[in-house]
Amino acid sequence: MSALRLYNYWRSSASYRVRIALELKGLGYEYIPVHLLEGGGQQFSPAYRALNPQSRVPALESPDGVLTQSMAIIEWLEETHPEPPLLPRTARLRARARALAQILVADVQPLQNQSVTGYLQRELRLDEAALKHWLRHWIGRGMGAFEELLGQESASGAFCVGEAPTVADVCLVPQCASARRFGVDPASYPRIARIEQACNSIAAFQRAAPARQPDAER
Amino acid sequence: MSALRLYNYWRSSASYRVRIALELKGLGYEYIPVHLLEGGGQQFSPAYRALNPQSRVPALESPDGVLTQSMAIIEWLEETHPEPPLLPRTARLRARARALAQILVADVQPLQNQSVTGYLQRELRLDEAALKHWLRHWIGRGMGAFEELLGQESASGAFCVGEAPTVADVCLVPQCASARRFGVDPASYPRIARIEQACNSIAAFQRAAPARQPDAER
Repeated sequence: MSALRLYNYWRSSASYRVRIALELKGLGYEYIPVHLLEGGGQQFSPAYRALNPQSRVPALESPDGVLTQSMAIIEWLEETHPEPPLLPRTARLRARARALAQILVADVQPLQNQSVTGYLQRELRLDEAALKHWLRHWIGRGMGAFEELLGQESASGAFCVGEAPTVADVCLVPQCASARRFGVDPASYPRIARIEQACNSIAAFQRAAPARQPDAER
Repeated sequence: MSALRLYNYWRSSASYRVRIALELKGLGYEYIPVHLLEGGGQQFSPAYRALNPQSRVPALESPDGVLTQSMAIIEWLEETHPEPPLLPRTARLRARARALAQILVADVQPLQNQSVTGYLQRELRLDEAALKHWLRHWIGRGMGAFEELLGQESASGAFCVGEAPTVADVCLVPQCASARRFGVDPASYPRIARIEQACNSIAAFQRAAPARQPDAER
C-alpha cells in the first residue's frame, strides 16, 4: 500500500498539476477517483467532506495528514521530497516561477472551473455563446499575460524558467489542456506552445495526462 | 529612497496582503498608488504594463526586479527576510497555512475581484440583486470551508495556525474586509471573527489597513 493517496478527478486541472508533480518527483501513489459531476458531485458526499470540508479536489492523504489545495500540496512535496526540484535555485527565479504559476492558479483556473461555469449556466442562465465568451475572455487574458511574461527574460530556456520543469510548467500544461477543451488554441501563444511540447515529451507529464487516468471518459 | 516600491491600490485585497507581510517583516517601502478604476484603470496604462504586463496589482520593485502575484511576493519576502517567519516550522503546518491561504487566493478572491464583478455588470448585465447573490455565494462557500477547516485542529491557537500570524492570517484579514464590503458579516464565522480581531490588534495589521493608505477614499 502506498503512503500517498490522491483523491482527484481525471479532468480537473488542479488534480492534473499534483499528478505531474508526483510523477516528476518519482513518487508512487494510490489513485482515488472523485467524480465531480455524478450524483451532483461525489465531492459533496459526507465521506469526502470528512476528508476535505471544502468539497474540492485534489486532496492528498500523506504521512502528514490530509493535504488540500494543489499549490500547498506541491510546496509540501518540494519540502519533503526536494529532488528533483520543482523550484529554481535563486529567490528571484523562485518568485518568477511562483508568479507564473499563480497567474493560472488565481486568475484563470478559478474562472473556468466547473463550479463557476455550473453557476453561470444554472443560476445566471448563460447560453452557450455567452459562456464561451466568458471562458475565452479569462483564458485569453491570463494566457496572454503569461506569454508576454515569458518573453520578458531572455526566454531561451526549454521551460518556463530555465532548463528544467518548475511549478510554472506544472500549472501550464493542465491550463493548455483546459484551454483546448474550452475552444482556445494554445498554438496562438508560441512560447507557451513550445514549452507545452517540451513538457509533453517527458514521461512524467505523459503519465499524468487526463486521458491516461483510470476514471477517464471518452 | 527605499529599496522596495509597492505598486498597489488601497482597496485591493491582494495589495493589502502584501502590505501586511511587509509590515510584519518590519520592511519599509515606498507606496505607489495605482488607481484601478480611474480613467478605465491605471493598471492598463503603458507605463504600468511595462512593469507588469498582466495589468494587475500588486507589483513590488525589489533588488530582485519587479515581482508580481501576491503569494509569490510573500514567499519571496519569506525567503529573503526570514524573520519573523510567516510560515510555521514544520512541513505539515506550512502545508496547512498555505492551504488556508490558497482557499482565499484561488477560490474566493478571484470571484469577488473588480475585473470579474465589472465583467458581470458590463457584459452580462447582472443587476444588483444577482451580483449580491454571486458575491455571497462564493464568499460564503469559501469562508464557510475556511471556518470548518479551522475547527479541524485543536483550534486553541490565537491565529489560523498556532500562536503567531502566518500567510493564512495575512490572507484572512483582507478577505474579512472584502466580505464586509460585499455584505457578508465575518461575525457569522466565530473562529474567523476571533482571529481577525487578534490580527487587528497588532500594529503591523493596523498600518496595512485600506483606510490608512494615502490613496484611501471616503
